[in-house]
Amino acid sequence: MESLQQETTITLSQLLAHWQGHRSLTRKVIDAFPEDQLLSYTIGGMRTFAELAMELNSMGATGAHGIATGEWKELHDLRGAETIDTSPQTKAGILNLWDWSTAYINGIWPQVAPFRLQEIDNAYGQWEGQVWWHLCYFIDNEIHHRGQGYVYLRALGIEPPAFWDR
Amino acid sequence: MESLQQETTITLSQLLAHWQGHRSLTRKVIDAFPEDQLLSYTIGGMRTFAELAMELNSMGATGAHGIATGEWKELHDLRGAETIDTSPQTKAGILNLWDWSTAYINGIWPQVAPFRLQEIDNAYGQWEGQVWWHLCYFIDNEIHHRGQGYVYLRALGIEPPAFWDR
Repeated sequence: MESLQQETTITLSQLLAHWQGHRSLTRKVIDAFPEDQLLSYTIGGMRTFAELAMELNSMGATGAHGIATGEWKELHDLRGAETIDTSPQTKAGILNLWDWSTAYINGIWPQVAPFRLQEIDNAYGQWEGQVWWHLCYFIDNEIHHRGQGYVYLRALGIEPPAFWDR
Repeated sequence: MESLQQETTITLSQLLAHWQGHRSLTRKVIDAFPEDQLLSYTIGGMRTFAELAMELNSMGATGAHGIATGEWKELHDLRGAETIDTSPQTKAGILNLWDWSTAYINGIWPQVAPFRLQEIDNAYGQWEGQVWWHLCYFIDNEIHHRGQGYVYLRALGIEPPAFWDR
């Protein structure tokens, strides 16, 4: 049994739960912003948190789809995307797209083959690397931008959700 | 061969490289601060980036030691820590401790047993969970605080290193 499990570090289902845990926290951070500040507040010439959240929205469902299938699509080309607004301009619309993506990721994840994360793929036709690296990039990029959202909230006098509150 | 690799998502050596890649970027972010701003600048009542970097310093070598050995120690109790300042008050001291930790992590990582990340451990005697989760916490917490450092740098008019520059 030990040699069979010798490279078992984090399983695919644990990685999904980990990603979705972070996505759950990021949703709370989006929701913690008053809508006007979500759409307008910045520090140091950076993007608004709405713009950062939309970058994350662009790499959630499409990223999971690419990991599962090897097809790197745009959001509006995913199955079912015709039912939602993929370019929302409101807080409610951003959160709605977030929730749709959460379900999409959960729905497609079982298609990820056991050996898939060690394969090399050209994500979005632009970034060549092993698939585990692409997955980590999606998660890490989200944590990075969410950390920036924490500063925006603090600067606005708003208590952000706890980092461990997934 | 396929069943033997069925849970191979990210190998231990890949996880080490991933962590150290993030640590390399965080070092550049620390180094991008002028020393006075590193030690004094804050937004919204948050900690300085020196304080955040020292939180990360407290969980680098000690975290790797805990993952490898199951012993959760304080930094000054690690082998060789008597040769360095574990409570630095300068930028050079913080970076020196960072580099010492980098070598410590690399040195102890080969002791991580193949099945270790699926074990449950009580990290630092306080947080019970699977070891992969503790490792992800160390990495994620670093990305989170480093993202905050990016905002500090932008607010100071300093261009931060690129996110992908590991």
